[in-house]
Amino acid sequence: MRNIIMQHRSIRQYKNIPVDEKDLNEILEAGTRASTTGNMQLYSIVVTRDEGKRKELSPVHFDQPMVMQAPVHLTFCADINRFHKWCEQRDAEPAYDNFLWYINAAIDALLVSQNVCLTAEAKGMGICYLGTATYNADQLIKILNLPNGVIPVAAIVMGYPDEDPGLTDRLPLEGVVHYETYKDYTDEDIDRIFAEKESLEETKQILKENNKETLAQVYTDNRYKKEDNLYFSKQYLKVLQSQGFMNHM
Amino acid sequence: MRNIIMQHRSIRQYKNIPVDEKDLNEILEAGTRASTTGNMQLYSIVVTRDEGKRKELSPVHFDQPMVMQAPVHLTFCADINRFHKWCEQRDAEPAYDNFLWYINAAIDALLVSQNVCLTAEAKGMGICYLGTATYNADQLIKILNLPNGVIPVAAIVMGYPDEDPGLTDRLPLEGVVHYETYKDYTDEDIDRIFAEKESLEETKQILKENNKETLAQVYTDNRYKKEDNLYFSKQYLKVLQSQGFMNHM
Repeated sequence: MRNIIMQHRSIRQYKNIPVDEKDLNEILEAGTRASTTGNMQLYSIVVTRDEGKRKELSPVHFDQPMVMQAPVHLTFCADINRFHKWCEQRDAEPAYDNFLWYINAAIDALLVSQNVCLTAEAKGMGICYLGTATYNADQLIKILNLPNGVIPVAAIVMGYPDEDPGLTDRLPLEGVVHYETYKDYTDEDIDRIFAEKESLEETKQILKENNKETLAQVYTDNRYKKEDNLYFSKQYLKVLQSQGFMNHM
Repeated sequence: MRNIIMQHRSIRQYKNIPVDEKDLNEILEAGTRASTTGNMQLYSIVVTRDEGKRKELSPVHFDQPMVMQAPVHLTFCADINRFHKWCEQRDAEPAYDNFLWYINAAIDALLVSQNVCLTAEAKGMGICYLGTATYNADQLIKILNLPNGVIPVAAIVMGYPDEDPGLTDRLPLEGVVHYETYKDYTDEDIDRIFAEKESLEETKQILKENNKETLAQVYTDNRYKKEDNLYFSKQYLKVLQSQGFMNHM
């Protein structure tokens, strides 16, 4: 177990080999064993394998080549639609169409997604999370035909790796763990915690390519810029509203 | 791997045995190997072991006995504070204090939490997610001293099980998986998908105890009521604002 977890790397190049139906079912079933709020299973998984459908998804995920390369694409959605329908058919009045239940449903969906990823990796496959699932949620809703009460939270591609990358660096454990209470970071703490990352050969290469003085500037000026952050942030809030997760009356 | 995942049950009774320091470190380290948005690790884990501190946490989690029984309590937080501090110290202007980045950070935190849970289970421990982490986020912020840019997303208790419950029922796979596009549920679909759950002996017992006609009514009238949902929903949105995740200018 721990070996699989410790060896995780995102895979961005895939072999042209389909995922066996039996394997996929076992992977998805492992997903459903994750903890879920009140055993309500407030999520849905949309499996996309059809090439035409993956072509539609490609621009949503900024045309990253792995979307077309990987044979399986999974979109994990927060879903209160099924539960609401069940309640309405059973003489019960559901009220899960609010922000708290978006969060509960998103938690459900994400625990499922991680179980799915680890089970796929244990079977020799690779995965990569696509952050773009929330960026362009409105487009995903159209392409995947998601009804009111359903919103994308995460997406992954899955398949057999055609690359063997090394592990990505991580901050030292002390950088992300606090004991008893949160100890806020002093300037010295920040220097120490980020020292290893900043001294990597890879980081120096990134600075040169991006013509920047610090790695932080690569994030703020190039990778995740203020104007994009604000645009996609407002977009997702709008979609939360229009999909029916913001009824607070 | 799949065995551990398939055997997961939430554990609510714990033995009075501490968790070894080395085990805890290995579990937390396994957490940090999870996928993370742009390798930014936008989360913090607060470890609570001190009995006095756990007593403070107990009412936040509605005084469920497992909070005092389990030797380790972990609060998983979305954290943009550390990253912002790093940017500011490196002549970069961060703009991650908005809703999109709350979601990205929450995703990061939840993938970490599931890695942590599975690694603990592989070591013979048990865990239980506490949904209350979002309900009473404001109280957690005070008790755990969380600064601006940090907000609780999930909490778990962890320790050695003092019970051996069976697996909890789940909806059949066809109830939560869609192929190519989302097929909305007909009345017949809902009947079929929920049939097994509704026919369980346990469900009949719950109906009798709660004096209800349908299991859905137990959810809407007793477990997760409209007034509570709305109250905690508004509360969490307020906390998102006050912790600095809603700056959209």
